[in-house]
Amino acid sequence: MANERRQLHLGAFLQGVGHHIAAWRHPDVDPADATRYGAIREQARLAERGLFDAVFFADTLGVPDGPPEVLAKGALPYGFEPLTLLSALAGDTERIGLVATVSTSYLAPFHLARKFASLDHLSGGRAGWNLVTSGTDWEARAFGLEQQTPHAERYRRAREYVDVVKGLWDSLGDDPYLFDKDSGNYFDAARLNFLDHRGEFFRLRAALQSARPPQGYPVLVQAGSSDDGQELAAATAELVFTAQQTLADAQRFYRGLKDRLEAHGRPRDALKVLPGVLPVLGASEAEAREKFEQLQSLIDPAIGLGLLSALLGNTDLTRYPLDAPFPEISAGEGWHSRVQLFVDLARREKLTIRQVYERAAGARGHRVVVGTATQVADELESWFRNEAADGFNVLAPTLPHGLRDFVDQVIPELQRRGLFRTAYTGRTLREHLGLPRPPSSH
Amino acid sequence: MANERRQLHLGAFLQGVGHHIAAWRHPDVDPADATRYGAIREQARLAERGLFDAVFFADTLGVPDGPPEVLAKGALPYGFEPLTLLSALAGDTERIGLVATVSTSYLAPFHLARKFASLDHLSGGRAGWNLVTSGTDWEARAFGLEQQTPHAERYRRAREYVDVVKGLWDSLGDDPYLFDKDSGNYFDAARLNFLDHRGEFFRLRAALQSARPPQGYPVLVQAGSSDDGQELAAATAELVFTAQQTLADAQRFYRGLKDRLEAHGRPRDALKVLPGVLPVLGASEAEAREKFEQLQSLIDPAIGLGLLSALLGNTDLTRYPLDAPFPEISAGEGWHSRVQLFVDLARREKLTIRQVYERAAGARGHRVVVGTATQVADELESWFRNEAADGFNVLAPTLPHGLRDFVDQVIPELQRRGLFRTAYTGRTLREHLGLPRPPSSH
Repeated sequence: MANERRQLHLGAFLQGVGHHIAAWRHPDVDPADATRYGAIREQARLAERGLFDAVFFADTLGVPDGPPEVLAKGALPYGFEPLTLLSALAGDTERIGLVATVSTSYLAPFHLARKFASLDHLSGGRAGWNLVTSGTDWEARAFGLEQQTPHAERYRRAREYVDVVKGLWDSLGDDPYLFDKDSGNYFDAARLNFLDHRGEFFRLRAALQSARPPQGYPVLVQAGSSDDGQELAAATAELVFTAQQTLADAQRFYRGLKDRLEAHGRPRDALKVLPGVLPVLGASEAEAREKFEQLQSLIDPAIGLGLLSALLGNTDLTRYPLDAPFPEISAGEGWHSRVQLFVDLARREKLTIRQVYERAAGARGHRVVVGTATQVADELESWFRNEAADGFNVLAPTLPHGLRDFVDQVIPELQRRGLFRTAYTGRTLREHLGLPRPPSSH
Repeated sequence: MANERRQLHLGAFLQGVGHHIAAWRHPDVDPADATRYGAIREQARLAERGLFDAVFFADTLGVPDGPPEVLAKGALPYGFEPLTLLSALAGDTERIGLVATVSTSYLAPFHLARKFASLDHLSGGRAGWNLVTSGTDWEARAFGLEQQTPHAERYRRAREYVDVVKGLWDSLGDDPYLFDKDSGNYFDAARLNFLDHRGEFFRLRAALQSARPPQGYPVLVQAGSSDDGQELAAATAELVFTAQQTLADAQRFYRGLKDRLEAHGRPRDALKVLPGVLPVLGASEAEAREKFEQLQSLIDPAIGLGLLSALLGNTDLTRYPLDAPFPEISAGEGWHSRVQLFVDLARREKLTIRQVYERAAGARGHRVVVGTATQVADELESWFRNEAADGFNVLAPTLPHGLRDFVDQVIPELQRRGLFRTAYTGRTLREHLGLPRPPSSH
């Protein structure tokens, strides 16, 4: 409908028992939920009840480096591998999109293409792939490398990787089956296209043995906000998650990325920008603040510092005094955009290391909004109406409570304002997002 | 119980709409079932109703080489990638084991360890890993190689691969969580063991971020019956699928493998041997024969020949006359044991190429048993009681019908004879198979 109002798109970013680093210590939370499939299933169903576009799972590969006694104080994320987890959730949910993070750095593109095609078929077109390139040396060591590949090369490689994966998804075309028992033709031979790829990073010849995914291609998601990351997103992504602290920064990012999109010959609405937001809700603002302070008080300093070090690409912060001004740090070959975000934040607000990790503990660099449902909805609406966001990736501080509060309090408020759907109208993730189904390259 | 009678173990080998190569052309079969998750779910539930130990999915990576017009006449197997498929089935079944084939040749061991750990956690300890090394050049080309690695090297590499994977499964030990909100200790630091592996084929340092799988290790399955394959199985496997045509051959294989087991210091019952069997059932033997002949009559010669070529490691058979004696063929670097099986079969029964492909079309080298439920049960009992089998991997000629016939007719007969369970007594695949839960290496 031409007159249809533009509405918010919402992702439910699920992680263990919540995004706040001390969530598992909160009195209302059962930390064992992070290790139980049944608990995660209920979180996904809760998000579906809230009519979210998708649930979203991040990922890292293994246990980080660090002193065991410090590691032991932190929740272990991603115990369930995202693609197996989302395949299970495909059968336990009906409509919600299923976005899994998979790194391009250590998995052959054939495997990635096949697994996401399989998930898209299993879920009736609800799969999304969040492309990351992995940003740590400890992950590289799980795959026999001494250290990660340089940042720019990882992103150049990722771009070629996407081409390969799309070529494989196109192997057989849409609905290639004939099933003609009389002639004995199972599929249409003319539809079979072997991918014959010779590139800088990959060379292969192969065809996937399944029809094109229901969505053509699963939705391509990206979360890298560095310059390399934005270029990759502008060339390939349809959904971008980003960590933005202020409206002005978010607007700059939003406009910049949409401009890049046009430079790549793509319409501005071919990619949706969803900043992350960690909402802490209360019946009053004071109650919400109290909730947040309770969580903040549960942060173990060793864990706060460890998290910040990890977010800064394993920068060693122990050599600086905790309460001295935040030092100058360069990005190295890790997560460029996240490092810059914390350096900017510290400089802007003149924060100490301790203050920065307290900020990071809630949302790992994403924005924290503390208040009533109305106040949170006001904030979301403001960003949405002022070219800072097409929607949000919602990081519940605790699970399932934080998500339940959002679903029961903020979603109805957004619906009253006409900003959010009151029922699913589509069946696929693309349809939820208002994205077209891409035709085959053949 | 010390007096418990030894009973059969049964796998339900699911593949598309049946194992007979012409199954999809059978009038009772809906070929589109092979592309529908719901149909596969019903097959798995049917196997669970039949109290099978496990469902089993084979795998190959992509579409084989060959003229498109010949490929188009054959069903495309494994459109759903096994690990995503079994993760979905984990939620849609309750007790049955879930065995997925994954090749060691093109996936980093970290990924394999993590995905199977995830499936084992998702399914409450029902995962099994069928280790293959991939045996074709066309699969190698999907991963950037010109041709596959030599046979012996693939198996040497697989053995090291298993060590790495077990080391990763042991990263955190059983039940490592403390969840101590007061002290802030999430897990027990003393339980964390990074794997530091330096071997011939792999070097890595990593730890999985999840507790040991419920089964300790998912059940290790192997189907290679070559000398290299048997050595690998004797060293590592707990369940072996094998293609055996005659009782004498099966006995030789069974005893040989159990002897090798002892040479590796393992008890003879630490590994269960399950030959494949394709049962074609009828109310009378004549009816069963008629059913089988109907399927055989639907084989397209191009497909029969193509299948045989593939089973023989892409040996080109088109240069031989179809009705001349079967030629001498050497194994090359592909599937050694399968090549030998067909060469032996042809020599023993003096068959032509056409006759051999007609034999192969039903069960791809596995044994075909045609008859009444009583006759089929007699055959299974005979192999079971005469040291040729600990059970069978059942290949239904058509799906779901062939499996339903087996569940409704043969299972009750086996139960009457005391040869098969009348209810699941265990919860995990290990418990179904009577295999102990291996302790951690730490």
